[in-house]
Amino acid sequence: MPPLDPNRLQQQIAFVLEADKLKSVLRRTPIADNSRLENSAEHSWHLALATLTLAEFAPAGSDALHAMRLAIVHDLVEIDAGDTFAYDAAANVGKAEREQAAAQRVFGLLPPDQAAAFRTLWEEFEAQETPSAQYANAIDRLQPLLLNWESGGGSWRSHGVQRRFVLKRMEPIRLWMPAVWPYVLDVIERACSSGLIVADNTDTRP
Amino acid sequence: MPPLDPNRLQQQIAFVLEADKLKSVLRRTPIADNSRLENSAEHSWHLALATLTLAEFAPAGSDALHAMRLAIVHDLVEIDAGDTFAYDAAANVGKAEREQAAAQRVFGLLPPDQAAAFRTLWEEFEAQETPSAQYANAIDRLQPLLLNWESGGGSWRSHGVQRRFVLKRMEPIRLWMPAVWPYVLDVIERACSSGLIVADNTDTRP
Repeated sequence: MPPLDPNRLQQQIAFVLEADKLKSVLRRTPIADNSRLENSAEHSWHLALATLTLAEFAPAGSDALHAMRLAIVHDLVEIDAGDTFAYDAAANVGKAEREQAAAQRVFGLLPPDQAAAFRTLWEEFEAQETPSAQYANAIDRLQPLLLNWESGGGSWRSHGVQRRFVLKRMEPIRLWMPAVWPYVLDVIERACSSGLIVADNTDTRP
Repeated sequence: MPPLDPNRLQQQIAFVLEADKLKSVLRRTPIADNSRLENSAEHSWHLALATLTLAEFAPAGSDALHAMRLAIVHDLVEIDAGDTFAYDAAANVGKAEREQAAAQRVFGLLPPDQAAAFRTLWEEFEAQETPSAQYANAIDRLQPLLLNWESGGGSWRSHGVQRRFVLKRMEPIRLWMPAVWPYVLDVIERACSSGLIVADNTDTRP
């Protein structure tokens, strides 16, 4: 154990307390019983759990525990930048800049070595270049699909989302968890049949 | 990758959706801004993040990533058994039996090999015998202390908790994160001075 640096502990606790604000950042997706919207903290926990549960479908070269760590950290920038609705193109303008500034401030509460390490984790998730980040991103697409379906339409229904946008959004699953893709297509087709997703003429065959 | 077994995926997704109910299990501790009670899903995320953040204070032989995994899984039994308030002795009667039955049902949604693996993780956390489980438990005590203090008293205040019970509850920190113990004692003494914890005559010296 390194010698105790009271300043490091103070900074780490300030960061942990600041992170608490993620519990108040609401997403557009409801929780499964449709009683309220999900917040980004419990969403991150749900991704971590799903990452552990579905590890056998993860891409070659990925590490489920590392993917879990990416899931835990990936949404912290929303404390400042907010959750940007995936299906709202206008809201996504400027998102990268807002999130960069947020990363600077939020991770900057930590001692410099840890600020750099956490930022590297966030950047790895965002870049979707490593197998673990690809896996974590695929899980980050699958989880809201499950909640939207289970809750009776969720953000698809409340925002009148079209099938082609859902298919595009789910692309990381097709790419990086291909064995799960038929399941995803089936959910989407059932959601279209039920009117939860706006059917269009997009061909869903690969 | 093993050949796809559609039954395994269905079972895993049923488990992930069942786990969503942890977002509706309320704890006695408020979130830091005192706007509402914390739920056990976002609490688990917060522990995972703190486990990563405070790894330099973890006991020798512990593994921060494994401790994070224990944190993600440790409260799932509350879906059936509920959150039992730590300072309520009567409510803790029968807790072990309720949680065993819950573990059987909730983890039992998974394919048998995974049900056993998840149950082993939960049992490791509960037993507090491995360094990683000791670390995760210490973090599980520290996080509500931080929230109670930050929120202006939280469950200490709403339940009139005495200092000696808080000290006993924080014991895993003294044992397994001793470098953090002076910080914990300082928070407790300040909370007593402010009337957030009921001061008693307990000697806080080790």
